[in-house]
This record gives sequence, structure tokens and C-alpha cells, in this order.
Amino acid sequence: MTDTPALRTALAYFEAWTGHDLDGAMTYVAEDIVCDAPAGRLEGAEAYRAFMAPFVRILTGSRLIAAFGDEDTAVIMYDTETVPVKSAPGAECLTVVDGRIVRSRFVFDRVPFEAARRA
Amino acid sequence: MTDTPALRTALAYFEAWTGHDLDGAMTYVAEDIVCDAPAGRLEGAEAYRAFMAPFVRILTGSRLIAAFGDEDTAVIMYDTETVPVKSAPGAECLTVVDGRIVRSRFVFDRVPFEAARRA
Repeated sequence: MTDTPALRTALAYFEAWTGHDLDGAMTYVAEDIVCDAPAGRLEGAEAYRAFMAPFVRILTGSRLIAAFGDEDTAVIMYDTETVPVKSAPGAECLTVVDGRIVRSRFVFDRVPFEAARRA
Repeated sequence: MTDTPALRTALAYFEAWTGHDLDGAMTYVAEDIVCDAPAGRLEGAEAYRAFMAPFVRILTGSRLIAAFGDEDTAVIMYDTETVPVKSAPGAECLTVVDGRIVRSRFVFDRVPFEAARRA
């Protein structure tokens, strides 16, 4: 794993939210973040926080699978354990400017969460 | 993007399957590949091919978003366009030994595909 500015920010953000410190995680998120998530595009830090908060609340564990980055882009893949879903892997591609995430592409499978909601 | 052995293999594999050359892609996949995909674990090249084939058939376009790697691990994130789903991003974390993918973690959202199937 090469230490780069974008990767440092991505890992600090990841460690914060997986540690249930959403306030801490948001210090790495730009006010004008644009995030393409499975349910659609999120624009702005407030929308991003509203997206992450319910997930952080049900999070019971996490494990980093891979993390790579260069000067301005980082990709992380991880597994998470949540109350309703025991293994919920995700991947994020993050564009970082001046230590803040300005662009995110967030990939995970919503099917197990929808199944848990229906159950 | 740093050129590493694992990344070279990952990109050759990606270029093959996104070019509808599944035979070519499978030359980069180990006989004993273990792949954790959204629907569960796939074991062996035959199971992996059976998983990829229907997707390659409906694929109409693709775009690499990010690709990173080191000696033995690569992560790729991409967007795909398919007949039923216009934007279906995915991420793969690939472990490569001697030019073959032996371990894969495959993340994508099944919801739009299930919705298209029901429609």
C-alpha cells in the first residue's frame, strides 16, 4: 500500500465512520461533495451525511480488504457487518482535493438490506 | 496508475470481458478461483464463467473508473451499460498469482437487475 495524500484522507475517513465517528468522518468530506451511490446521486455534505448516518447506526464491524491511491484518487474495498446483514461488502472510489473528498462513487449491493427490511 | 503484475493481469482480464471476449478473459482466471460475489461464493473457473457469461451477453458498454494494484492484488472500479440497466457500476478486488486470478471479491448492486427482471 503506497502512502499518498488521497489514500491518507480515504483511510482517515474510513477509520472514522467505521469507528462510529460520523462527525470525524465528515471532516474529510467537502461541502460540495458529489456522490454516485446505488440509489442515485447525492449532492452536498448534508445529503451525504443523511445517507451515511443510518448505515453507521447499524454497523457492528468492518474490515478493510484493499486500499490504493495516487495523488488525488483512492479506492477502498471493505467488508462490513451490520445488524440486519452479516456481510455487506462495499467499494468507494474517492477523489480528494486539499484533504477533502469532493467526488465519490459508492458501490454495494442493496439486495440483502431490502430483504432484511421486508423480513 | 502504477504498472504492476497484478494490475496488468486485472486490466487484460477487464479489457477482454468488456470486449465480449469471455474466452480471452478466462485465460486470466485460475482453475481454482474463489470469488465472493453478491449472490454468494463461486468456486472454480467453470462456476465463474457461468456467472460472467449472462452479464457479458447483455453488456453494451463499459468505462474504467479507477484501477490500482501492487505485486499480487489489484482493484478495479468501472461503470457498465447493459441492455436492461443503463448504469451498473462494479468493483473487483483481484488476487493474482502467476498471471492468473485466484481470488476475487466482486461488488455490484443487484437491485436494478432484479427490477428489470420483474418489469
